[in-house]
Amino acid sequence: MLSINQKKFVNSLAQKKYRTEQGLFIVEGIKMVEELFQSDYEVSDVYATSFWIENNQDKACNEVSEKELKSISSLKNPNEVLAVVKQKKQQLIDISTQLNVCLDKVQDPGNLGTIIRTADWFGIQNIICSDDSVDVYNPKVLQATMGSFFRMNIVYTNLSVFFSENNGLTVYGALLDGDNVYKKELNSEGAVLLMGNESKGVSKELIPFITEKLLIPNYGKAESLNVATATAVLCSEFKRV
Amino acid sequence: MLSINQKKFVNSLAQKKYRTEQGLFIVEGIKMVEELFQSDYEVSDVYATSFWIENNQDKACNEVSEKELKSISSLKNPNEVLAVVKQKKQQLIDISTQLNVCLDKVQDPGNLGTIIRTADWFGIQNIICSDDSVDVYNPKVLQATMGSFFRMNIVYTNLSVFFSENNGLTVYGALLDGDNVYKKELNSEGAVLLMGNESKGVSKELIPFITEKLLIPNYGKAESLNVATATAVLCSEFKRV
Repeated sequence: MLSINQKKFVNSLAQKKYRTEQGLFIVEGIKMVEELFQSDYEVSDVYATSFWIENNQDKACNEVSEKELKSISSLKNPNEVLAVVKQKKQQLIDISTQLNVCLDKVQDPGNLGTIIRTADWFGIQNIICSDDSVDVYNPKVLQATMGSFFRMNIVYTNLSVFFSENNGLTVYGALLDGDNVYKKELNSEGAVLLMGNESKGVSKELIPFITEKLLIPNYGKAESLNVATATAVLCSEFKRV
Repeated sequence: MLSINQKKFVNSLAQKKYRTEQGLFIVEGIKMVEELFQSDYEVSDVYATSFWIENNQDKACNEVSEKELKSISSLKNPNEVLAVVKQKKQQLIDISTQLNVCLDKVQDPGNLGTIIRTADWFGIQNIICSDDSVDVYNPKVLQATMGSFFRMNIVYTNLSVFFSENNGLTVYGALLDGDNVYKKELNSEGAVLLMGNESKGVSKELIPFITEKLLIPNYGKAESLNVATATAVLCSEFKRV
């Protein structure tokens, strides 16, 4: 059973304002919830259909009908289970010994989610987002991470301040006037890969912090690459032997 | 002015069934329509706001209000202009002398659109989709191509038949049991890069056609890469010097 208040409350968490106010967010679907329970995130409530409950008898949860689940889900096809989870203050680890990804004003939830998933594939642990990037707790971001969200340290900060305070880092910036990445020697140690906004690229005020400008050469006629795509190609260049 | 019949007609083209029946599709937004007029696609109708018309006085079109444009647009924020365009039978060119991309059952419109844009960036001209891949005329696919659609040859076919009839090609397949792509010698001439469905990968019946199995090594814990991301990394590997 789902009470009217529960429904209202869960639905309110679709909005960033209420997520921040409550310090909560929503995780949906069998696979994501499975990864959630393997993580150290604290689960506040679980709403699940009888089918999921049968297969997860060790988990406390509220049984709901499929129709009730649909009424609180952000998915077109809700998938058995929805959890309300406590937000966690995340911290960067070992930024000076590995490759980190830094995102300046990335706006599209699918792009951020895909970048998190890609970073996880390439063994990257830290993602530093500008304060005005899309919210990582946005349901579309979380879905696109395919569970990688739970393994990643993602912080939001003022990037100018971040770069000023961490001035020993090598900042590789993806720029249209950069050097051919295939011919560059790339060093992951204490490196930051800085990627810009979908349509405007890296902000003017961050350009001075870039120590190495990178370009993926254009062999055709497209004007640009999607930011998640470009991030993947560049991460691959750092990691390939 | 937009008549009720015009509105009904344009809205019907949101569905693949009617697009195929009428042999038409829709192109939206200033940038996409600009690329459309540079292409050899035949434009059937244009609906535009007074602002667009002022800047495009050489183009015949129906003036509509912003509200009317919104009523026929698939975009959240319609962007000045919408064109109804004739579909065109596309043909592959020079498949035996260059790298081609082949997609097996790719379902997500954003993925197909991003792959088209990426292929255009890397100078690839041909994309061969399985008959049951998402429709390239889907508005979300077209938007995600950012105009690259107009420069690409995209055909839909039965892939088993395609591979049987083109058995001189080197078929590189992206598989989880493939060889480390970073250590492979890749040859673009007469090559096909075969990418599988988002959740199921390459279809069983196509595996025998693969002559070279490729894997992007996993340095972290993500179970897989997004198909558009993986395509980009592999295209980059083929093109890099």
